[in-house]
Amino acid sequence: MIQVMKQLPPSDLMDEYEELMERLKDIALVGQVGSLLSWDQEVLMPPKAAALRAEQLAWISKEGHTRQTDTRIGELLEILEEITDLDEVQSANVRLARESYDKATKLPTEFVIEMAKHNSKSLISWTEARAKDDFSIFRDDLAKSIELARMKADYLGYDELRYDALLDLYESGLSVSRLDPLFEGLRNNVAPLIKAVNERGTRPDMSWIDENTWEQGGQEVLSQKVSESIGFDFEAGRRDASTHPFCGGPNPDDVRWTTRYSDSDPFGSLYGSMHETGHGTYEQGRPRNLDFQPAGTANGLGIHESQSRLWENQIGRSLEFCEWSLPLWKEQFPENMSNVSAEQLWRSVNLVEPSLIRVEADEATYNIHIMIRYEIEKMMISGELEVDDLPDKWDDMYEEYLGVRASSRSLGILQDIHWSMGAIGYFPTYTLGNLYSAQLLAAARSDLPNHDEQVRDGDFGPLLEWMRVHVHQRGSILKPADLIEEATGSPPSPDAFVEYLVGKISRLYGIGA
Amino acid sequence: MIQVMKQLPPSDLMDEYEELMERLKDIALVGQVGSLLSWDQEVLMPPKAAALRAEQLAWISKEGHTRQTDTRIGELLEILEEITDLDEVQSANVRLARESYDKATKLPTEFVIEMAKHNSKSLISWTEARAKDDFSIFRDDLAKSIELARMKADYLGYDELRYDALLDLYESGLSVSRLDPLFEGLRNNVAPLIKAVNERGTRPDMSWIDENTWEQGGQEVLSQKVSESIGFDFEAGRRDASTHPFCGGPNPDDVRWTTRYSDSDPFGSLYGSMHETGHGTYEQGRPRNLDFQPAGTANGLGIHESQSRLWENQIGRSLEFCEWSLPLWKEQFPENMSNVSAEQLWRSVNLVEPSLIRVEADEATYNIHIMIRYEIEKMMISGELEVDDLPDKWDDMYEEYLGVRASSRSLGILQDIHWSMGAIGYFPTYTLGNLYSAQLLAAARSDLPNHDEQVRDGDFGPLLEWMRVHVHQRGSILKPADLIEEATGSPPSPDAFVEYLVGKISRLYGIGA
Repeated sequence: MIQVMKQLPPSDLMDEYEELMERLKDIALVGQVGSLLSWDQEVLMPPKAAALRAEQLAWISKEGHTRQTDTRIGELLEILEEITDLDEVQSANVRLARESYDKATKLPTEFVIEMAKHNSKSLISWTEARAKDDFSIFRDDLAKSIELARMKADYLGYDELRYDALLDLYESGLSVSRLDPLFEGLRNNVAPLIKAVNERGTRPDMSWIDENTWEQGGQEVLSQKVSESIGFDFEAGRRDASTHPFCGGPNPDDVRWTTRYSDSDPFGSLYGSMHETGHGTYEQGRPRNLDFQPAGTANGLGIHESQSRLWENQIGRSLEFCEWSLPLWKEQFPENMSNVSAEQLWRSVNLVEPSLIRVEADEATYNIHIMIRYEIEKMMISGELEVDDLPDKWDDMYEEYLGVRASSRSLGILQDIHWSMGAIGYFPTYTLGNLYSAQLLAAARSDLPNHDEQVRDGDFGPLLEWMRVHVHQRGSILKPADLIEEATGSPPSPDAFVEYLVGKISRLYGIGA
Repeated sequence: MIQVMKQLPPSDLMDEYEELMERLKDIALVGQVGSLLSWDQEVLMPPKAAALRAEQLAWISKEGHTRQTDTRIGELLEILEEITDLDEVQSANVRLARESYDKATKLPTEFVIEMAKHNSKSLISWTEARAKDDFSIFRDDLAKSIELARMKADYLGYDELRYDALLDLYESGLSVSRLDPLFEGLRNNVAPLIKAVNERGTRPDMSWIDENTWEQGGQEVLSQKVSESIGFDFEAGRRDASTHPFCGGPNPDDVRWTTRYSDSDPFGSLYGSMHETGHGTYEQGRPRNLDFQPAGTANGLGIHESQSRLWENQIGRSLEFCEWSLPLWKEQFPENMSNVSAEQLWRSVNLVEPSLIRVEADEATYNIHIMIRYEIEKMMISGELEVDDLPDKWDDMYEEYLGVRASSRSLGILQDIHWSMGAIGYFPTYTLGNLYSAQLLAAARSDLPNHDEQVRDGDFGPLLEWMRVHVHQRGSILKPADLIEEATGSPPSPDAFVEYLVGKISRLYGIGA
């Protein structure tokens, strides 16, 4: 498999590469077992089992860390990095193994333990602060989380900004200099659109939703049928219910996603299901000849989110999808849906309305929620903003950009779980996902001239197949930005998303672009 | 904690014992993780996940084996075995650790991995063979299982028979020479009883069962309520459905049992639930101050089965239990149960009738099912019987001892999961469980003079508490036979079971003892 240079005998090199692959397989297996423990904990573990599950998770985490930091991996990498003519999969494996090894070894063990302990404590104080609507309970832990994040950045290293080191953890190569122009493009184009909708748009009729009760059984059938139609393979995965919807599971043959149901809102479960189905089909589409190899895993969080947003928004909130799905809706909810047309459904699932809660935000306002978090994180890490000034800054920015102000800290600074888990630098990948999804669909459309008709017929196979070939099957062989460029012909940009959003909102709300 | 001899300084000894306990905790954690992987595989894993789950199980099995066979454990044991004044828990830990260490070190690592992989594969072929009613699909895997079992016995060593080495795995000290007279004794006492029932007994009226349909929903409620009433803690466990009912789960805070439902037979799910509830309450009742220590685990399989049989048969099939549960039945199945009395229910749940299916067999014929498997296993391992002759031998023995012959392989040789999991030598513990359960209840009765009234009132607390104190809390501190003697005042014997069965059958069928 490896073409070798003169000074290194073939058999030796095969040995080094194979040994690295063996070690990475072992690490991957530890990760698979850990995924199942976590999935079970979230979805169906009995409550009293929590303490012993924590011991099991700590054990598996220790087993993974020991293997990841084995100095033999460093030795193997140094040898393999000397080879100049690896093929693209081999060099991706070496590059990705190097990234993981450096990330694992640059953080001292005591520091990792300190972070883990602090995050456990912090999750508890955040939960209490949120329940009691009292930021002061969380304040000191957040301050320490920021301090630890800065130390983490210093251990990991960075060129320009500390925050860059944190961004890079969730999408390789991401930085403020890459993100600033993307968010600026969004701010300049999307903010005026939201303003126009607020001033001149007519709110769609939501009464048919609000005045009815939506049985869980019907929502479950709808969720299942739509996910199957998109192409999620239920022989290699599951659908369950959980408080916080997510997609997990140990491997591409065992992908498990969850959703949640509300009697008063049927969109949450269906669009949540389509979102997780997007993540799930990505996992199921991984290149199976690269099982247990880093090059065969799904790419960074931005690419992952592009797949969920594709099905949830780009497809799920299109008029064609509403035309196709209307009969399914009517089958499950004949009375509630008796007077609802496809166009009415389409208008309702596309309600644009500035709100306080990110996870319930529409496509137009969503990225503004992320932009606010991004700007705050930058200032948090640089030290421009003190912890005590955070809550008001949050509220001020919501007022400035969305025209709404939280009536309580729980709806403001305390709303997201991320910082309580030490995940600073994670939020921007949500916006990347939105941008990538639009850019990918625009590229797919040029290969699929009958795309709209296919969606109207519920024939999602061609689009899924396009994603399989251009995204899923490419695993992590390329860096995220390079994958986008290979698949679409251009580097990551906000243009496709802005064009899509402006066109759709103008059509929905009858306002000029 | 440890009183030491002169020649060994106290601090050193503490260190050795604590080090052993630390290592055993690590081994126990590996086992907990493995239990969850197995439970998930049985209950809800998607079908395509089988191959990678096999890799995960092989990995965890290897991790466990590596720890169990660490020569440091051997060194520690040699030191600790020199101490003559350990307390009972300490000496049980040392004795049990020695048993495990010897069993583990006698099996080579590659052999253990091969067995684990084969068992995963074999479970799949058995499932398919059973579904398609085609023994040939399972034949080669069974042949290899037998071969592996023989090799295992050779590695473990034995005095008289290979099969003894396999029996000893499931109940310490069990052997053919202990079991042969026992089965013979049962055959001598129980066979005439079955014959008498068949010739002179009046078959109870089963038409109210057979002529009705039994909705799964009602069976689920009944199963749940009865299990809760017995005292299973659903905050520390779960009830699910699976093809082959079992009790598993990682630890006493997370005990998971399953049952299965049939529209035409409501007894299978209820009595199966009581059986698994018995196993489950035993696991939940383990001495929690001995978490992660071998002395704190449930005792051998015979004792485990005594707890399941206690609730399923000794309690569940008593007239008093039927009197208490009748209103629950009527609540769930008002029409089906409208003309059924407690006595009629009692007669129906105690139908004595030779049949093909072990798990549905009545108390009188059950041990004959076990005897057949025991005799076949003896011949399988000794080589007296070839794999290709197994299916007919099975059917012939059923015809000989029970007067019934399977119309299909699924009802015959393919009915049990055990061999597909490599569990050869396991079946006899079921009969031990039946004997122990009768002996334990007889002893409990002398401490609980109002036992029958308590059952009639659904007050199962006193009996569960008796078992907690005399069985559950004693963990594995004593050897199985010693535990029975401590709890009941006599060594294991078939007398209590025979007396119970003869008394009950005589009363039910009006035949002289």
